[in-house]
Amino acid sequence: MSMAPSSRRPSRWEKLGSTTVAQTRVLDLLGVRYRHPVRGTEKDFVVVAPSDWCNVLALTTEGRLVLVRQFRFGIDEFSLEIPGGAMEAGENPIEAGLRELREETGFTGTRARLLGTVHPNPAIQSNRCHFVLVEEAVQSAALEWDADEEIEVTTVPVDEVLAHARDGGITHALVLSALFFLEPDWLARRAGAATAVHLT
Amino acid sequence: MSMAPSSRRPSRWEKLGSTTVAQTRVLDLLGVRYRHPVRGTEKDFVVVAPSDWCNVLALTTEGRLVLVRQFRFGIDEFSLEIPGGAMEAGENPIEAGLRELREETGFTGTRARLLGTVHPNPAIQSNRCHFVLVEEAVQSAALEWDADEEIEVTTVPVDEVLAHARDGGITHALVLSALFFLEPDWLARRAGAATAVHLT
Repeated sequence: MSMAPSSRRPSRWEKLGSTTVAQTRVLDLLGVRYRHPVRGTEKDFVVVAPSDWCNVLALTTEGRLVLVRQFRFGIDEFSLEIPGGAMEAGENPIEAGLRELREETGFTGTRARLLGTVHPNPAIQSNRCHFVLVEEAVQSAALEWDADEEIEVTTVPVDEVLAHARDGGITHALVLSALFFLEPDWLARRAGAATAVHLT
Repeated sequence: MSMAPSSRRPSRWEKLGSTTVAQTRVLDLLGVRYRHPVRGTEKDFVVVAPSDWCNVLALTTEGRLVLVRQFRFGIDEFSLEIPGGAMEAGENPIEAGLRELREETGFTGTRARLLGTVHPNPAIQSNRCHFVLVEEAVQSAALEWDADEEIEVTTVPVDEVLAHARDGGITHALVLSALFFLEPDWLARRAGAATAVHLT
């Protein structure tokens, strides 16, 4: 990647220690003490520390994406999203993604693979979120919702999902990030399918 | 958008009240009490409550995007991002975006407009993040960094930014969401420029 023009390089701060400000079911709030290596100044920074998360892009053979609609307490409103949740101890992203997909939607699939990994917010949050692509998804398993979950499950053609997301119908930044990784894969897949049809 | 098949509709929980678990410089941590309208059960949910944020996609006339590289305390690592920060009281997204761009990078521009608005995490976080597109960006103003800021400023061709982001070189989910909104606009712009050149 060709970068220019460039200003001076920022320093790597030294982490001195961490105190827990608050502990909750879904995250810890930390105060992390850092020292600037050149200036020598010390300061506490706020860090939100949840476990890692995993979100799932589940495609049906008809080119539809599995979506869930839930009431979300953070924004006090409904939100249209892809399935996902917190990873459990010992799980890798593929296992977590397939589990969340099955529990929340009853869909299972084949050929799961990691499409990308992001930081929800590097400035103030420590965890990562993985995006798993699951293909040939079919609704075949029983739902296993958590006690407070009530989820509307639906499938929508991928092209409509992308358009709806850009029109403000999907506002969840992690879902939009997942679609950012999916889109070129999807366009190549669609072009391939068109070529395949053309060749027969 | 054609949705199918659909399971039953989730209920809208009733917000009963909110208590502050912790207050910090950049966010409040809340416990928000909700009641389920049908089951009648009550429960406290954790909500992270920062102020609204604004991130800026600043394009130069040469088709380069203004990027910043900073040490980020949330992930204890450097991160390549677009400029941005917390909105100040009374600011609209355009004003906040132009201010953050100028303060962090010294770039100013013309024709600023709102490209999209997202929720960083509807499940557990209340605020919004706006994405502002600024065109004809040029480095013309003095930097005004906050006391703890040290920022490497650079510009990179948009096509390289998109490729680098999909290769894992940009991991900030809000930046990837902003690129999701920028990409169709950018491709249309590039196609238009190619046509314009072809016609002359």
